[in-house]
Amino acid sequence: MVIIMSKESKEKDIEDIISVLDERGFDIHRSTGVDHTILGVIGDTSTLDPRTFQVYEHVIDAYRITAPYKLVSREFKKDNTIIRIKDVEIGGNETVVMAGPCSIESREQIMRIAEQVASAGAKILRGGAFKPRTSPYSFQGLGEEGLKYMREAADKYNLLMITEVMDKDQIALVEQYTDIIQVGARNMQNFTFLKALGKAKKTIFLKRGIAATIKEWLMSAEYILAGGNNKVIFCERGIRTFETYTRNTLDVSAIPIIQKLSHLPIFADPSHGTGIRDKVLPMARASVAAGAQGLMIEVHDDPDHALSDGAQSLYPEQFKGLMDEVRAIAEVIGRKVANGTTK
Amino acid sequence: MVIIMSKESKEKDIEDIISVLDERGFDIHRSTGVDHTILGVIGDTSTLDPRTFQVYEHVIDAYRITAPYKLVSREFKKDNTIIRIKDVEIGGNETVVMAGPCSIESREQIMRIAEQVASAGAKILRGGAFKPRTSPYSFQGLGEEGLKYMREAADKYNLLMITEVMDKDQIALVEQYTDIIQVGARNMQNFTFLKALGKAKKTIFLKRGIAATIKEWLMSAEYILAGGNNKVIFCERGIRTFETYTRNTLDVSAIPIIQKLSHLPIFADPSHGTGIRDKVLPMARASVAAGAQGLMIEVHDDPDHALSDGAQSLYPEQFKGLMDEVRAIAEVIGRKVANGTTK
Amino acid sequence: MVIIMSKESKEKDIEDIISVLDERGFDIHRSTGVDHTILGVIGDTSTLDPRTFQVYEHVIDAYRITAPYKLVSREFKKDNTIIRIKDVEIGGNETVVMAGPCSIESREQIMRIAEQVASAGAKILRGGAFKPRTSPYSFQGLGEEGLKYMREAADKYNLLMITEVMDKDQIALVEQYTDIIQVGARNMQNFTFLKALGKAKKTIFLKRGIAATIKEWLMSAEYILAGGNNKVIFCERGIRTFETYTRNTLDVSAIPIIQKLSHLPIFADPSHGTGIRDKVLPMARASVAAGAQGLMIEVHDDPDHALSDGAQSLYPEQFKGLMDEVRAIAEVIGRKVANGTTK
Amino acid sequence: MVIIMSKESKEKDIEDIISVLDERGFDIHRSTGVDHTILGVIGDTSTLDPRTFQVYEHVIDAYRITAPYKLVSREFKKDNTIIRIKDVEIGGNETVVMAGPCSIESREQIMRIAEQVASAGAKILRGGAFKPRTSPYSFQGLGEEGLKYMREAADKYNLLMITEVMDKDQIALVEQYTDIIQVGARNMQNFTFLKALGKAKKTIFLKRGIAATIKEWLMSAEYILAGGNNKVIFCERGIRTFETYTRNTLDVSAIPIIQKLSHLPIFADPSHGTGIRDKVLPMARASVAAGAQGLMIEVHDDPDHALSDGAQSLYPEQFKGLMDEVRAIAEVIGRKVANGTTK
Repeated sequence: MVIIMSKESKEKDIEDIISVLDERGFDIHRSTGVDHTILGVIGDTSTLDPRTFQVYEHVIDAYRITAPYKLVSREFKKDNTIIRIKDVEIGGNETVVMAGPCSIESREQIMRIAEQVASAGAKILRGGAFKPRTSPYSFQGLGEEGLKYMREAADKYNLLMITEVMDKDQIALVEQYTDIIQVGARNMQNFTFLKALGKAKKTIFLKRGIAATIKEWLMSAEYILAGGNNKVIFCERGIRTFETYTRNTLDVSAIPIIQKLSHLPIFADPSHGTGIRDKVLPMARASVAAGAQGLMIEVHDDPDHALSDGAQSLYPEQFKGLMDEVRAIAEVIGRKVANGTTK
Repeated sequence: MVIIMSKESKEKDIEDIISVLDERGFDIHRSTGVDHTILGVIGDTSTLDPRTFQVYEHVIDAYRITAPYKLVSREFKKDNTIIRIKDVEIGGNETVVMAGPCSIESREQIMRIAEQVASAGAKILRGGAFKPRTSPYSFQGLGEEGLKYMREAADKYNLLMITEVMDKDQIALVEQYTDIIQVGARNMQNFTFLKALGKAKKTIFLKRGIAATIKEWLMSAEYILAGGNNKVIFCERGIRTFETYTRNTLDVSAIPIIQKLSHLPIFADPSHGTGIRDKVLPMARASVAAGAQGLMIEVHDDPDHALSDGAQSLYPEQFKGLMDEVRAIAEVIGRKVANGTTK
Repeated sequence: MVIIMSKESKEKDIEDIISVLDERGFDIHRSTGVDHTILGVIGDTSTLDPRTFQVYEHVIDAYRITAPYKLVSREFKKDNTIIRIKDVEIGGNETVVMAGPCSIESREQIMRIAEQVASAGAKILRGGAFKPRTSPYSFQGLGEEGLKYMREAADKYNLLMITEVMDKDQIALVEQYTDIIQVGARNMQNFTFLKALGKAKKTIFLKRGIAATIKEWLMSAEYILAGGNNKVIFCERGIRTFETYTRNTLDVSAIPIIQKLSHLPIFADPSHGTGIRDKVLPMARASVAAGAQGLMIEVHDDPDHALSDGAQSLYPEQFKGLMDEVRAIAEVIGRKVANGTTK
Repeated sequence: MVIIMSKESKEKDIEDIISVLDERGFDIHRSTGVDHTILGVIGDTSTLDPRTFQVYEHVIDAYRITAPYKLVSREFKKDNTIIRIKDVEIGGNETVVMAGPCSIESREQIMRIAEQVASAGAKILRGGAFKPRTSPYSFQGLGEEGLKYMREAADKYNLLMITEVMDKDQIALVEQYTDIIQVGARNMQNFTFLKALGKAKKTIFLKRGIAATIKEWLMSAEYILAGGNNKVIFCERGIRTFETYTRNTLDVSAIPIIQKLSHLPIFADPSHGTGIRDKVLPMARASVAAGAQGLMIEVHDDPDHALSDGAQSLYPEQFKGLMDEVRAIAEVIGRKVANGTTK
């Protein structure tokens, strides 16, 4: 941290600050310039809050120099983290696609959709068994029954499985079925949950909170890595802005930013990111063109009767078209997307 | 819900939509105008998502007419809800002030500050024993030990006690000590937690999420009331905007809006709402002038050494001045604030 | 400006930056710490863009230390600026109220409303003759005819007059009639216009842009002062956020912030700030409680037939009630609001 | 417009509203349902403000059904507008690239950069002669001298020319030199200027305001078309959000949205959209993948000494690489980008 003091500062003002820092065990590098005195704070400043010093008189500003996250940073680990689950490699040269319905609605539904997305080239089956809903009166998911159907469908079509966990108490149950645990946007700063995820055995898919800065998002991943689980995937899924035409504003630029700051993979979810079916395809292309290491796409074969999020779900045929386009775009930047089994 | 269809709609387009609604058990009132056909959907539409219909061809727009919340609304209950806890009445004619440190740091600290805030007229002692921290490396609170100190301090100075609960598993423990359970901004849409709070015995203090619309906030309270607990207090604590001078932007207008839409009381927290000590006083005055039924204020007698949020904590002497000013302002609008015991 | 370089920096990296700064005539204070090298840039850095240095390799960050504005700052002028126009003092101990219709619609209308607002204690008559409208098909104002009616009304009831100027070419015309020139939110960064306002003879009422940071707002005022006109009043009128219940979010905290950073007066406009009639009163009270040096309020005696902004205009009787309440609140903080002439 | 009234409405409440609308010449289609009465307003409602009716008692809500813009809409004109300037076709099958420095700094500089961008495949030379600067103390541009240099450079390398006009008074001058007039983000709602641009002879490049909704942006274009000039190009250049890592958040989804709602072409400006050099390439790829009909890119051969925006300018060599990548991506979606002349 650096603390910049104005030339009006008296010696006592400066010493007051130095003594507070000294008590906490920090060393100070003091530099007296023509217009300002600059105090450089030496030591692990991750627990210091710059605001504490900003309110002192004659302090012009206080800035954190070192990032408050460590384990997730490129400085800590230079090479991309590659997460291998069964025969799928996430974070490597392949752009991996997750697809499936918003909610698991029945055994037949998830079996049918699993076949469709697998045949188009998806590697991971998505679907919700426990649904976070804004309204207490909306469909809340099939629960464990849904997990069973989904595991069966994933196994039959040689797919990995990802599903959302809403609470630390569900981790043990869901881990019996899933390969990847999804953490929803609203839980991104549920710190009790994040600590428990640090002890989980499965890979964590950490969605960005709708009002989370990139720094806060990295800090949430830091909680999980600090707990011992270093298999974390970021997922950009849209932020809240003043624009209401789309449900959220997909922050495509978060993709290259995360890749610069962290070694962990980043996916994009254009279904939630836009909330409108006909915007999913162009935004999926945009995300892959920006370098996303994967996509999450909602697919439903009867979206008009979907119990949730029908408006943003693609028809299986549209999904196949999407896969063909993102495959070609991935190749332009030296990446690849798996082929489907159908022509 | 009303669904508005353009004059290009063919009879089949209209009947497709009617049949989807009919299957779900809704009645339709159809009105054919010169330029549009309007479908009025009759029945409990709280589980319908307008977006489902917005993506149909020839649908110009679909709007929800009835609010998706019920129990929290003024329509459901015309008179203000008054919550009585011991001898304190919240939601009535008195503007009730909660004050105390961000974190409980020691028995001595909380005893000292409890005395100071009580003598200035506060009725409720605030303080955190379990702290939600952005960084896993920051001070996380004293836990149950802190709760004991706080209960002792509250009892000694005849104060109610409010403290944050971070997770449904902590409810039973914290209920042994506290009078009011605080739900932090980051947990406002932790739906598993909200359901559990519906079964809690204590009053819930529901902070607004930093990116939560007023409608979403009301829906979160609806979860708690739907679960059986109708003792809920709203607390505006600042929303995230593009402005970075303040930590958050305190949305003072949320106070009269909530009072129009709901019968439940609303407080303001200018400490978190601004994040800067010298802005707390003017924003506390503004909140009371706007009609807030209570305030939450951070007070610390040694903010430079506070383990969290020192920059936004008032000195006890400043807090006393604040109480004097808000007392006079409350009177202007026919409300009152308790007198302190000191001159 | 300070530029912070990582310990990976080689001597050449540091010298490259120093040489760029040296060419532009800056002196450098170099301080080598354990973990970082800090370069302090000495001289007038207002023309330097920190981003230029942030993109250099091994630069951790670059910050501007001195504010980029000068003439508007408290550092430049410690005492509040008081603007005297005829017998009205703006920026002094009185909270001055501007009131009137959104648009001047007829001679009769403005005469009638002028009488009503004057009798309630307003000192300044507001009204638009040239209207900035989002739609080219909306009512665009009466033009010069409206200015004449308004001047007549203001003179008859001993009021000052404020009206919006939309373009530098209108300045000369409008200055023949008005006492104060209003600059609308959408023109806050119309730099050509700002330069022309620096040459204007009348006081400028500078509304905050809906997405303008406080720093950008101060910079826009700086343009006017740098041009030679130091009679500038700020007006907070709501910023754009994700919340859509209100038309804008009135940023009440901008009032004490501007007062800390600048010597110029600041008003609040709760009519545009909320866009809803029944929210104007509580937000007017909140603004005065926060310390605003004045208010701008829309008043119309037949808002249902108003040609613009009827939904946010107060009835004259409501305005009188507002004046009574803000008068009492102003007194609590040692300020005053003029009495009306009616009982 | 539809106005929805609750079942509590008395006949008089409904008739009051009908009479206000009737006076203004609207016909009403009244539909009485079980729970609500719905009033359909027939006629040109573009001048009606829904808020006027929302504040009536017993009005649940009032919505505009027809878009407030006409001439810019797909309904008005089904086919894409193609703007032909000399041998360049904008809005057709080619993705057209504009490139050049932020500011014209000297004749040599613009000649050199024009050659570099032309050889990489750019068709249009960008550069500023009049610069809108947040600070009155920053470099304000070379003025007409810069226009002359730029015209010469454009002609020599067979490029079109685009430059920003800041004010209606500059239009006549700049039209003598430029092919396309750029309207900056801060001027998007400068309505006096927009009206004058409706009379301009040249094509208008209309940047999105940093806080402008897509609807407001369309309305601003409507001003220009309503004035008689139907050669308008939209340019997405980033919106202001809470995220501060990037200068703005490039709203890539605005590209397919504008293409659905309007027949006019849309470009993207990833240089201003991100503000950071190494994010320009991935966001240029994303924009083209999303279907943008063109790009605007800042290129400077000595960005460390650029007088403005050096941090976001590409080196000529980087620009060439960008062109190669976007050319390949355009082909994936059936579009093309011009070849450069160099290997």
